[in-house]
Amino acid sequence: MRNSTRSGVDPFIVMDVMEAARRAEEAGRHIIHMEVGQPGTPAPQGARDALARAMQEDAMGYTVALGLPALRRRIAALYGEWYDLDLDPERVIITPGSSGAFILAFTALFDAGDRVGIGAPGYPSYRQILRALDLQPVDIETAAENRLQPVASDLKGRDLAGLLVASPANPTGTMLDRAALAALMEAARAQGASFISDEIYHGIEYEAKAVSALEISDEAYVINSFSKYFSMTGWRVGWMVVPEDHVRVIERLAQNLFICPPHASQVAALAAMECTGELEANMAVYRRNRALMLEGLPKAGFDRIAPPDGAFYVYADVSHITDDSRSLAAEILDKAGVAVTPGLDFDPERGGGTLRFSYARATADIEEGLARLRRFMAERGAV
Amino acid sequence: MRNSTRSGVDPFIVMDVMEAARRAEEAGRHIIHMEVGQPGTPAPQGARDALARAMQEDAMGYTVALGLPALRRRIAALYGEWYDLDLDPERVIITPGSSGAFILAFTALFDAGDRVGIGAPGYPSYRQILRALDLQPVDIETAAENRLQPVASDLKGRDLAGLLVASPANPTGTMLDRAALAALMEAARAQGASFISDEIYHGIEYEAKAVSALEISDEAYVINSFSKYFSMTGWRVGWMVVPEDHVRVIERLAQNLFICPPHASQVAALAAMECTGELEANMAVYRRNRALMLEGLPKAGFDRIAPPDGAFYVYADVSHITDDSRSLAAEILDKAGVAVTPGLDFDPERGGGTLRFSYARATADIEEGLARLRRFMAERGAV
Repeated sequence: MRNSTRSGVDPFIVMDVMEAARRAEEAGRHIIHMEVGQPGTPAPQGARDALARAMQEDAMGYTVALGLPALRRRIAALYGEWYDLDLDPERVIITPGSSGAFILAFTALFDAGDRVGIGAPGYPSYRQILRALDLQPVDIETAAENRLQPVASDLKGRDLAGLLVASPANPTGTMLDRAALAALMEAARAQGASFISDEIYHGIEYEAKAVSALEISDEAYVINSFSKYFSMTGWRVGWMVVPEDHVRVIERLAQNLFICPPHASQVAALAAMECTGELEANMAVYRRNRALMLEGLPKAGFDRIAPPDGAFYVYADVSHITDDSRSLAAEILDKAGVAVTPGLDFDPERGGGTLRFSYARATADIEEGLARLRRFMAERGAV
Repeated sequence: MRNSTRSGVDPFIVMDVMEAARRAEEAGRHIIHMEVGQPGTPAPQGARDALARAMQEDAMGYTVALGLPALRRRIAALYGEWYDLDLDPERVIITPGSSGAFILAFTALFDAGDRVGIGAPGYPSYRQILRALDLQPVDIETAAENRLQPVASDLKGRDLAGLLVASPANPTGTMLDRAALAALMEAARAQGASFISDEIYHGIEYEAKAVSALEISDEAYVINSFSKYFSMTGWRVGWMVVPEDHVRVIERLAQNLFICPPHASQVAALAAMECTGELEANMAVYRRNRALMLEGLPKAGFDRIAPPDGAFYVYADVSHITDDSRSLAAEILDKAGVAVTPGLDFDPERGGGTLRFSYARATADIEEGLARLRRFMAERGAV
């Protein structure tokens, strides 16, 4: 048996870092993890308690494909709380993580060979999921002056069937303001491209509230998840809001592709939405970590950074230090005991000159990591 | 925004039955559910206890994409227990349900436009997932004398890139014996078609043990799940065994398409594998229910049935009663208060003359359902 052409997706370069970190830990070394894109915190206690109760009371078989009605209603209410929007719960689709939402969105909107624009740098799996579904990812190389976000004029002549943007973005943490997002949506509409907004980092914002595409138009697919703000990565539960006339198509796809999102995770997610105290305590940690990073990274010599608007990453331009971020990341792990992500995963063209630092973990780890980075860079003679 | 061509998948006809059943129950009627394809039992107590403990001790973030190593090892050991096979745990991939395994298998093996053979009747989602991935499902109309399973000679001149078989099958419960399965695998190999074996009902067998494709050759994708024998439908956790040289391709696809299977479900699944007492008690119920069905359905007038080898379905030929199984199912629900599945979901060509009865629920429900069916058919003048 041979593999298909479309299965030839790129490996994550960060996996080499993670494997090397694992080996180092196995050998007894202490490693600080600034490579991981997930909170160190568990699901909120209230979420875990709710599931423990439900497991004793309910057989927890399949839910309907679109998800528990109570969860769909609660998410619709969140759009009132977060964006002052009146959202029909019927438009809310519960998905197996944002990953499941991407699969649903891409198959619902695009046919084999269609061109879908994505920003570079960006979340590496966009490109790979598109390829696995026989679609053509079109990298839009973003500019530093646009804070590494695509802008409307970037779309000219691209002949796109779709455009996918993320705000706050991974790996940069930068956001699109209302005007920039509206201009992108209009530019996409003008060339007949469907608009997909990845809002997975909404809720993790520092200076201003992130703008949802739904505040601008209902003609968009909006994808979100319980993984980040709600601290539930391993639970694989997310959601998607689609235009009213797309719900039935998504329902049929979801019935066949997934049957339903994990029932237990849906129960936990519903309860997580009431755990504001614990979630805001997590936010206080991210806020403190971010301040430490913005102070400590430049002191270590990583001074070409922009303050992130949201998420829990700092994307550093290290092109004055190296054009081989992969080797630099390996060196930092080996000598400093800090795992970081080479930019090549996010930007195949320019990522040789960038690194992503995550500050999603405990503050003590961030402090220790920054101290190690400073010593390492001083010894390397870069500062 | 418009939808893609490939998103135009067929609705499940049984959904109309389920929606009508829901409305009837809302209106105060008591309905017996013989339409559902899932156990009425929860995950084993030991599985739920293990998860309750783990939730207090572990953050339960992402697992690695291929799943918890302990679960992969335990599943490999199951192949020793069930089939006397020595299976390398590295070849075991944990998936988000068998649904996730199909998506991985189809993208790993086939490119857009490829033809994949499936038996008719068969699990309706095969056809729809293939279409959503821009593949061509090729219906192989099976013969009653082959107990509605495809046989090697059916493959002649089909020009298939892949062949997918299920044993025990849904909706018939029939199995392929070792010789028939081996002949199908050889016929597929001879025309260069990759072989996928859906073994989701293994463990739920009555007269003889089901044969795994892995007993015959390692050159196959074998898909299984915790949904049926392990009574964990809503947990969305399954597995797939692939040839050794396909593991890395699957790993990269899984990293990008799913990140990982639900962590909580993996923890529960691992513990479920030690809950033999409870699982065998479930089996005793299926065995009793099957005997009741084989006795009761003919008495009600549904006498064109074959004893199922496995799973928990009886597929009845009702072509002497109707050529419109959809209307007949609606009538049975309306007049007898029993929900059943019209065959059209499983066999678009011939399903107008068939019904599927599930006996996955409690024995008392089966007894009551059979009594209602007998009264209904007597009143209808069919017996």
